[in-house]
Amino acid sequence: MAIVLGPHQYGKAETRLVRFTRDSPRHQIVDLNVTTALRGDFSAAHLVGDQTTVLPTDTQKNSAYVWAKTTPVDPIEEYGLALARHFTGEVEPVEAARIEIERFGWSRAVVDGAEHDHTWVRSGQEVRTAAVTVEPGGEHVVQGLKDLVLLKSTGSAFRDFLVDEYTTLAPTDDRVMATSLVAQWRLSGDLAGIDWNGMYDGVKAAMVAQFAGVHSLALQQTLWHMGRAALEAYPQIAELRLAAPNKHHFLVDFTPFGLSNDGEVFHADDRPYGLIQASVLRDDAPPARGAWRSSAGLA
Amino acid sequence: MAIVLGPHQYGKAETRLVRFTRDSPRHQIVDLNVTTALRGDFSAAHLVGDQTTVLPTDTQKNSAYVWAKTTPVDPIEEYGLALARHFTGEVEPVEAARIEIERFGWSRAVVDGAEHDHTWVRSGQEVRTAAVTVEPGGEHVVQGLKDLVLLKSTGSAFRDFLVDEYTTLAPTDDRVMATSLVAQWRLSGDLAGIDWNGMYDGVKAAMVAQFAGVHSLALQQTLWHMGRAALEAYPQIAELRLAAPNKHHFLVDFTPFGLSNDGEVFHADDRPYGLIQASVLRDDAPPARGAWRSSAGLA
Amino acid sequence: MAIVLGPHQYGKAETRLVRFTRDSPRHQIVDLNVTTALRGDFSAAHLVGDQTTVLPTDTQKNSAYVWAKTTPVDPIEEYGLALARHFTGEVEPVEAARIEIERFGWSRAVVDGAEHDHTWVRSGQEVRTAAVTVEPGGEHVVQGLKDLVLLKSTGSAFRDFLVDEYTTLAPTDDRVMATSLVAQWRLSGDLAGIDWNGMYDGVKAAMVAQFAGVHSLALQQTLWHMGRAALEAYPQIAELRLAAPNKHHFLVDFTPFGLSNDGEVFHADDRPYGLIQASVLRDDAPPARGAWRSSAGLA
Amino acid sequence: MAIVLGPHQYGKAETRLVRFTRDSPRHQIVDLNVTTALRGDFSAAHLVGDQTTVLPTDTQKNSAYVWAKTTPVDPIEEYGLALARHFTGEVEPVEAARIEIERFGWSRAVVDGAEHDHTWVRSGQEVRTAAVTVEPGGEHVVQGLKDLVLLKSTGSAFRDFLVDEYTTLAPTDDRVMATSLVAQWRLSGDLAGIDWNGMYDGVKAAMVAQFAGVHSLALQQTLWHMGRAALEAYPQIAELRLAAPNKHHFLVDFTPFGLSNDGEVFHADDRPYGLIQASVLRDDAPPARGAWRSSAGLA
Repeated sequence: MAIVLGPHQYGKAETRLVRFTRDSPRHQIVDLNVTTALRGDFSAAHLVGDQTTVLPTDTQKNSAYVWAKTTPVDPIEEYGLALARHFTGEVEPVEAARIEIERFGWSRAVVDGAEHDHTWVRSGQEVRTAAVTVEPGGEHVVQGLKDLVLLKSTGSAFRDFLVDEYTTLAPTDDRVMATSLVAQWRLSGDLAGIDWNGMYDGVKAAMVAQFAGVHSLALQQTLWHMGRAALEAYPQIAELRLAAPNKHHFLVDFTPFGLSNDGEVFHADDRPYGLIQASVLRDDAPPARGAWRSSAGLA
Repeated sequence: MAIVLGPHQYGKAETRLVRFTRDSPRHQIVDLNVTTALRGDFSAAHLVGDQTTVLPTDTQKNSAYVWAKTTPVDPIEEYGLALARHFTGEVEPVEAARIEIERFGWSRAVVDGAEHDHTWVRSGQEVRTAAVTVEPGGEHVVQGLKDLVLLKSTGSAFRDFLVDEYTTLAPTDDRVMATSLVAQWRLSGDLAGIDWNGMYDGVKAAMVAQFAGVHSLALQQTLWHMGRAALEAYPQIAELRLAAPNKHHFLVDFTPFGLSNDGEVFHADDRPYGLIQASVLRDDAPPARGAWRSSAGLA
Repeated sequence: MAIVLGPHQYGKAETRLVRFTRDSPRHQIVDLNVTTALRGDFSAAHLVGDQTTVLPTDTQKNSAYVWAKTTPVDPIEEYGLALARHFTGEVEPVEAARIEIERFGWSRAVVDGAEHDHTWVRSGQEVRTAAVTVEPGGEHVVQGLKDLVLLKSTGSAFRDFLVDEYTTLAPTDDRVMATSLVAQWRLSGDLAGIDWNGMYDGVKAAMVAQFAGVHSLALQQTLWHMGRAALEAYPQIAELRLAAPNKHHFLVDFTPFGLSNDGEVFHADDRPYGLIQASVLRDDAPPARGAWRSSAGLA
Repeated sequence: MAIVLGPHQYGKAETRLVRFTRDSPRHQIVDLNVTTALRGDFSAAHLVGDQTTVLPTDTQKNSAYVWAKTTPVDPIEEYGLALARHFTGEVEPVEAARIEIERFGWSRAVVDGAEHDHTWVRSGQEVRTAAVTVEPGGEHVVQGLKDLVLLKSTGSAFRDFLVDEYTTLAPTDDRVMATSLVAQWRLSGDLAGIDWNGMYDGVKAAMVAQFAGVHSLALQQTLWHMGRAALEAYPQIAELRLAAPNKHHFLVDFTPFGLSNDGEVFHADDRPYGLIQASVLRDDAPPARGAWRSSAGLA
């Protein structure tokens, strides 16, 4: 019985990189948070402190900047693939590379009714994400979003649930449903032909449409339809995963004051919150292999 | 020489209140964070624990909810005035009331090209604010915004500054300028006739236009023009105050790699940041009295 | 080829629960953040909105409170096991339950040199964690901590690393090393006899001792020794996982001012940061099964 | 009637500076967040973009680092005074300088029962603060703390309060009282002889003792006694200001489950929270002048 080193990886997290294109008076902005992680056999660094196979995380940061200069950063998936291929292809000890990217949205400032050439306003809460893995035998891209906050004021019920002796919740036919959505979808097949930006917009639109349109008997049901709609629209998507907090809005009790409250005034609560997680996939989806292994969290 | 009680106030902070209007299939949403503070002589509560003049903060919360039911919450300034008048007019020990409101933006979800009747997506980072004070002798409203993140990729310089022996900064004729703006403007004269929502949109548009249009020799200069433009557009504004972090974007040095960087790739830094504060006012502005005294911070 | 529901779970996240023991004038406090997640076949809820097998998350919250009343909450691992067994044993559709607990530290207030009976001060940044899984065929406990911020001002080097054309980092024989540690360790064998609080203190002490004592050639090496020491001290630990940001402290360059900087003045940077993850385990560790499957994140 | 520039200031916020003393094997650490703000007539920078009197915020950052090298940083009040005097004394256009400092606590790591020479663990939540103002005619120091989280499980009541038609709160003779304290105290008289570190510890201890020892009829009463005790202990303190959220702990209702809850199980709520602000001062306190004018917020 021995104590051994298990899975390990290392990298540079949260390089905040802004790339402008200035080849015309109408500039473009791409605002990114880039995290890199390298995988391979780095046991010598752990066991005896031997760094000879360790490319510094500072170099990984430099590389993220250089690739932002020399390759397109839009779509972010292509940038991630190029950077990952650099690490796996040109840095000998690296067996696999994971690149995770957050993209923050900006809208052109509107001045005198026209969009400005070189001024922007940060838009939305939503963050677009991409996770790229290049590993022996394959390349994987997971596209996604987070912090997409959605709310509907009607069209949501919760009733006929399981009741035990600790249940005090009253059933309802009409409640507020709100969430801050995290969604990620894994692509399969040939990555070369994908219209990444079009797919992103399309998947988001499909999910928002289902959130709005499904008369919801449970957040679970809404999530299923959001995932299903995305997979139906895009055959390249093998699997979609969702995490959705149920951001509770509690109807304020006005009976002490002789007033009614017909779904008008709510307290938006912070904690606790429901948390629903679900995945939707094709029954012939190819194995995910390293596609979902994160650059963060525990090894 | 004695130890005495000085200024004091108390209230309920951050009541998260969502108000829907459902009188037609096309619902309306107003999403607020409401803070109340009451002022008067509450020395008995401090000195001997006598609560007989203390309206509980829980009651203040209830009142915020009830007024959201029984009076319009849009514009938020009118709601704040109504709630403040209730406290000063109907709760005997209360001499003055401060109501501070944050309003979060929502956009209607777009489904099949049309705006949905009862589903929304949280929009923008920007938070609209209002601070209402009702005190003996007057009512004050300060309208404002925070977290409005603006960036321009050119049209900003910083040079010919004061140099001492600790100065290492190089002058530049072309830099990225970015800020997360906090602005508040105090109204004077008759509050009854003000188009609050129109004024909010107008002041914001004027400030964004100046941020974009002024060829900036310093963030200070840009701020002055933002304030000046707002006061020129709205004679009811007596004074406007600005706090603007200079969110530094540092040009990445590519010389070790034999590459140029013509304003293309930047590191968006977190801390430290410059912080510029300025006020712009009319030389005949009436005294501010309690208009700027916050509900938060130290007494 | 069909679209199907994949792995899913649901629960109540972040129930903030404080339990006092008041059976003597010397009260005890246990301050928790409890998250529950239930697993099983909840496909009807997803596919057709049928809630008949869904125990509401509100009921899960109630249960967390009731168990805090009726069973000991200290050690938190026993409380988590009791609550998980309730869900799997008494709620028919539940096949597996995951309970994740954060425990916040409090120290007794010191008044006139003595610890006070019923007043406390929040202590430390560190949060103790427990993750309990009860599933068919076994029970799993992962003990851990997060936000343990450690720093050493010497005894750390980084040199002789891999250099490529994008490497600009200078090697160093003496640097500041700092991290905000996340560590979790999985127990194996009979859980009944474990002194949970003693083990927690012991593992933490072992890790801190290694962080301090190892002359570090890389954060990787330090992490390995931290994990190794914990496993050597506690044979019940099958596996330990670590995630450690390398919180960079950059030596301020005083050469423009004609001053030296012999490891005295540093800038503590925010982002980006290195991120090192590693696991240490026994080569005969039993399979982890559901031990590491989180209640949060994607399904 | 003209539009004019009003009060303004500018500076560098949140320079994260760590200073080690390494003149013996037993190192010392001082971990600071330093904000500087300069005041004077900088109207040319605002009105016409003329920077000739503007010392860059980058230079202010450099100066903060240099002074941390060349003058003691402990106590922080002396460091702040030295840095402020530099700006007002040696930078011609500067009429007044404000230095605000946060100091983060570290405890020596304990290894084998002994405190380690060069390894520390971040301690507590509490942050020590200092605000120094050097202006024409005087120097001011405000010492303080924030994020000191205190809780007592008994010895607090709230009853016999004012009741109106919107009051639903039930009176209680025994509740949990908790706060996250912000306190700042202004010194008067000769600053040269003050034992800053001793005063900090003494004021904190006096406040904690009152929080614990006063049988509280209201948080207001507790705050008064905390301030009073500090002023009685330290004649150099002219005035002390407090802001204290009432962090509500709600007794969980177990009646649906046939259980009692004798002050044992509570829900720690996030928002809304009560917010109590009070000041305690000597009736012959000298004028505060610029002592309380912050480097942050609106001008």
